[in-house]
Amino acid sequence: PGISTLIAKGVYDAAFPLHDVSVSHEVLFEEWAKYSAFYKYQPIDLVRKYFGEKIGLYFAWLGVYTQLLIPASIVGIIVFGYGVATVDTNIPSLEMCDERLNFTMCPLCDGACDYWHLSTACGTARASHLFDNPATVFFAIFMSLWAVLFLEQWKRRQISLSFSWDLTGIEEDEEHPRPKYETILLEKRQRKRQQKKKKKKKKNELTWKDRLPGYFMNISSILFMFGLTFSAVFGVIVYRITISALMAMSPDPETKSNVRVTVTATAVIINLVVILILDEIYGAVALWLTELEIPKTETNFEERLILKAFLLKFMNAYAPIFYVAFFKGRFAGRPGSYVYVFNDYRMEECAPGGCLIELCIQLSIIMLGKQLIQNNIFEIGIPKLKKLIHALKEKETTQKEKDEERPPKQWNLDYALAPFEGLTPEYMEMIIQFGFVSLFVASFPLAPLFALLNNVIEIRLDARKFVTELRRPVTARAKDIGIWYNILSGMGKLSVIINAFVISFTSDFVPRLVYQYMYSQTGTMHGFIDHTLSFFNVSNFKPGTAPHSSDQGDITVCRYKDYREPPWSSDAYQFSKQYWSVLSARLAFVILFQNLVMFLSLMVAWVIPDVPKTIVEQLKREKKLLVDLFLQEEKEKFQLIQSLFVKPNSQSPTAGQFWTSLCPESLGSRLLGNNRFAGGVDF
Amino acid sequence: PGISTLIAKGVYDAAFPLHDVSVSHEVLFEEWAKYSAFYKYQPIDLVRKYFGEKIGLYFAWLGVYTQLLIPASIVGIIVFGYGVATVDTNIPSLEMCDERLNFTMCPLCDGACDYWHLSTACGTARASHLFDNPATVFFAIFMSLWAVLFLEQWKRRQISLSFSWDLTGIEEDEEHPRPKYETILLEKRQRKRQQKKKKKKKKNELTWKDRLPGYFMNISSILFMFGLTFSAVFGVIVYRITISALMAMSPDPETKSNVRVTVTATAVIINLVVILILDEIYGAVALWLTELEIPKTETNFEERLILKAFLLKFMNAYAPIFYVAFFKGRFAGRPGSYVYVFNDYRMEECAPGGCLIELCIQLSIIMLGKQLIQNNIFEIGIPKLKKLIHALKEKETTQKEKDEERPPKQWNLDYALAPFEGLTPEYMEMIIQFGFVSLFVASFPLAPLFALLNNVIEIRLDARKFVTELRRPVTARAKDIGIWYNILSGMGKLSVIINAFVISFTSDFVPRLVYQYMYSQTGTMHGFIDHTLSFFNVSNFKPGTAPHSSDQGDITVCRYKDYREPPWSSDAYQFSKQYWSVLSARLAFVILFQNLVMFLSLMVAWVIPDVPKTIVEQLKREKKLLVDLFLQEEKEKFQLIQSLFVKPNSQSPTAGQFWTSLCPESLGSRLLGNNRFAGGVDF
Repeated sequence: PGISTLIAKGVYDAAFPLHDVSVSHEVLFEEWAKYSAFYKYQPIDLVRKYFGEKIGLYFAWLGVYTQLLIPASIVGIIVFGYGVATVDTNIPSLEMCDERLNFTMCPLCDGACDYWHLSTACGTARASHLFDNPATVFFAIFMSLWAVLFLEQWKRRQISLSFSWDLTGIEEDEEHPRPKYETILLEKRQRKRQQKKKKKKKKNELTWKDRLPGYFMNISSILFMFGLTFSAVFGVIVYRITISALMAMSPDPETKSNVRVTVTATAVIINLVVILILDEIYGAVALWLTELEIPKTETNFEERLILKAFLLKFMNAYAPIFYVAFFKGRFAGRPGSYVYVFNDYRMEECAPGGCLIELCIQLSIIMLGKQLIQNNIFEIGIPKLKKLIHALKEKETTQKEKDEERPPKQWNLDYALAPFEGLTPEYMEMIIQFGFVSLFVASFPLAPLFALLNNVIEIRLDARKFVTELRRPVTARAKDIGIWYNILSGMGKLSVIINAFVISFTSDFVPRLVYQYMYSQTGTMHGFIDHTLSFFNVSNFKPGTAPHSSDQGDITVCRYKDYREPPWSSDAYQFSKQYWSVLSARLAFVILFQNLVMFLSLMVAWVIPDVPKTIVEQLKREKKLLVDLFLQEEKEKFQLIQSLFVKPNSQSPTAGQFWTSLCPESLGSRLLGNNRFAGGVDF
Repeated sequence: PGISTLIAKGVYDAAFPLHDVSVSHEVLFEEWAKYSAFYKYQPIDLVRKYFGEKIGLYFAWLGVYTQLLIPASIVGIIVFGYGVATVDTNIPSLEMCDERLNFTMCPLCDGACDYWHLSTACGTARASHLFDNPATVFFAIFMSLWAVLFLEQWKRRQISLSFSWDLTGIEEDEEHPRPKYETILLEKRQRKRQQKKKKKKKKNELTWKDRLPGYFMNISSILFMFGLTFSAVFGVIVYRITISALMAMSPDPETKSNVRVTVTATAVIINLVVILILDEIYGAVALWLTELEIPKTETNFEERLILKAFLLKFMNAYAPIFYVAFFKGRFAGRPGSYVYVFNDYRMEECAPGGCLIELCIQLSIIMLGKQLIQNNIFEIGIPKLKKLIHALKEKETTQKEKDEERPPKQWNLDYALAPFEGLTPEYMEMIIQFGFVSLFVASFPLAPLFALLNNVIEIRLDARKFVTELRRPVTARAKDIGIWYNILSGMGKLSVIINAFVISFTSDFVPRLVYQYMYSQTGTMHGFIDHTLSFFNVSNFKPGTAPHSSDQGDITVCRYKDYREPPWSSDAYQFSKQYWSVLSARLAFVILFQNLVMFLSLMVAWVIPDVPKTIVEQLKREKKLLVDLFLQEEKEKFQLIQSLFVKPNSQSPTAGQFWTSLCPESLGSRLLGNNRFAGGVDF
């Protein structure tokens, strides 16, 4: 029972290495943790020396990621710039804004809403073009390859680091079981002993039977959490539907005109708040669930915790975005046959400019909001607050002791700091951000830029936290970033298919191509808007759903965005041939995009060698030296034996010096797999 | 300049290790190379001992592959059995055979051909169902996962072998350059020296400038070979088109009725012959091209050769199959607007039963033919023939020496054998076979069975060749099967997308599903055949293309297999809505299938650990022993030093024994990376 067991049992309160308030701490603060050092490379070797390999690797990884965000941001800005530059020459948005074309659209709600002109949605059409243009397709391909490149680059960096930090030989040693595991095992053994020793084999392990309740609890809780996330998303949808219906019924014209903006903005903010709250809850739940599973070792514990926390937080952060990208507006029905929820409220549709602009708004607000609030409140605000409270408390108690006038001891100072709680939250934050940068990047090319700006601050923020606000962590060795690499690589793979679907189904890229090359009479985009709008005969409105009063005069036919047969066709309002041909083109695009990008990714991963050339050469040289040394040693041993037998009395003082060359320290430690003690993981 | 240089320069004729005609050779022959041993596991350790690691690994790989073909064959037989069992209850094929339905089909050729009844194609429809049924979809998924499983299984086996064969530590040492490379380098250096030493830096390497002609020749030759392959395929197409047209015009009714069978059979046989001939040519061309590139080392040479040969042979073997699977019948046009080649001949269509049955025929004939002919002629026949010729020649020369009556020396016996020419042809044959088993398995579920039957023989055939018909190869070490693993893994990936396309585009699986769930009135398959046939008004035939005379009475409308608008529609003969909806469904199926299978493959690869558990434990134990030994040694050294200094005169005879324990041989060799001499790669 080491000190960790004693802490677990409450015998001790805490155990931590003291901060080394000397040169290295000072240098770290000056060169690394100051905001003014944001443009400098991190002193990774120093970080590793002070905090250990595990934390060193985290900061090295963060550095590589941030560095690679720079080219991605630049390309993203160029793509966005292309959208801005072409917005005035883009025919579809010009057509939407053209008042002469005068498309009369079907009302957006039952009864209370009037027919409206498409040209009033000019703004969103123009905004939509900023993010939905051919350059976006290129950018999506670029970012998928970027993700592969990032992983490859990190592999190389990791290998360089593990070489220069002497990690190449280390392997996971047999770990000690966690105190909790041991306690439960002990209980079980005692229980068994009391059962009159019926069975012979007393296993020294917990079996699946002991863990069954834990597993059961796990699965049901995770399903419950998923349900919670989905209900939160659904709740926000209901909020949006009801509020827009209510506001549309309001007599005030001011209110009416702002419906969409107000509803979208408030709904996204609600989403954001829900995400932030659930994020904290899910973190705690994942911890609790992992404890229930009683993993045997600390590594095991960490891995399970990470997987669970990632799954929950990923769902939480991305569920509303997935909804907007792939489901919103797909189940709204058509005029005369809308889909209703709770019998009264029509399902929501996308904005007239397309769903992509809504996805873009959703994505940017959640991403920025999450980063700003998490950075400012959770990482700066709350620690400051805690410190303040602590300081106030201290004041009372120290008031009495003040008279003694002793300078505070380092352990008292460090005890006042917050305990180090693992790197999981730090990694998690970055991984979720990586998702914003890769998964839906087709809809928001500025995401890498915002991620870059955030990370430049984040590095210094984390550094400052580690140097000044946390107790010095017990150093731990690690030869890689572990399961996070797998998660990153999985997200990279997922991003290919998601971006393919975003481009082909959420954006209007494919319908535009199909129109231009299959239906357009002139081979240009003129007439595209007309082509995408179907006709509806207002006499087919169900009773009570037609507008109560109309300013638009005598309307017989209104338009809506869909590919359906016109009222005068034999199978009126069925999906038209155009619908199916556009759908085919969309699906074909997904196949083409996915396979092209996967092929290019394989190429990129194949072209970049995992081990940098310099390291390969160095390893070769080292190996050669090692072999030479060994041969030398064998030879000298042999000579020594000979000398011992031939002239046993001629020992000279040089023998001592001789032995030193036989067991050079560096050789010994390298051969032994570098198992040197690295900072006392277990006291 | 070693012996290989001397052989390359023609100083020596050959250099080879002698066959060891003792116990191990005998045992190998009895236990391994006899056909009657086909059911036994191979004595891999003995093979490795006699032929070296590289050849041992090849046979181990072949063994794992053959073993894993057993479950694949069983599932394939079950899938085929399902087709056989359901052929009499399958509604589409029953409908096609039903004479009462009486579909009058449009003629198969211009002028000479008459209208015909669909029920006459009953046979192919029934045959088609054997391979094109829902079980095939399951089988395609199964085989994709099987391919992943095979690779994982091989990884495990390889690690076990490299552990028990002591290969874990070996790394590629600096190889010697090939003699050819050195010769050319020497020439270059001499040329440079003559050029008055203008430039200072004389590189000791060939640069890209020296290789440029080689590269250029390479690319152009490969492109030319690709062109050759494609023209061969196109030639066979033209043969098929013209012969069927000519035979259709023949007045003999016997000839007419057999058109399709005759043409298909002869065409496939021509394809097969072309493939076999080009295969040999391409093998030689790849060798020649690789020599032109002047690779530096033997490994480098082999890798480039394999890649090139694989590319060429893969194209050669699969081009006709790809054509039948994805292109045949897609560009035939429609009645009244057929596509013509050479102005006269209509492009060919698929058989009425669907393209899948043709793919199946093509695949089975090429696969079986290639295996039978290559095994029998190239691997048994030709060596036998060579031996015979050799024996005849020998007879003349030895006639004179016969009088001397000396028993022939082993080196003379071995010199009479064929030289060993590397494992590339052996691997290549198996890899191309792996392609038949994985790439198009959706169309031919019996492929694994035929592969299994072939391989059971192949192992013994190869073994016999190595033991009795080839000079004993110079043993070479290898820790894995090298680039072949990458090729296998690439084929596994490719097979997913190809099978997805075969199921969705070549087979009628998706149209049947769409009909059942979207168009069928009753929810059953009744009426499917009618649904897939479009109408054609015979008055729309172009002049001269209508049948000259008809036995079918007065025909006004004939049917053809396509989804097009009927003649009475406003846009007659355009693709109908059904066409686009079926196309969408086909594409959606591809996406679904590909992503599902990729996900499952990742799961399979993730679930199966690369290193078997027993090996992990053994490695741990070994490491612990090593560390203990080292500590022990250090301790003893220390004691020795002490004893030297404390009582220099007390040397006892035990010191010798003592030293032995200090440098145990196994420890030394393991630490030195097992660089022991393994059979003299370079004399």
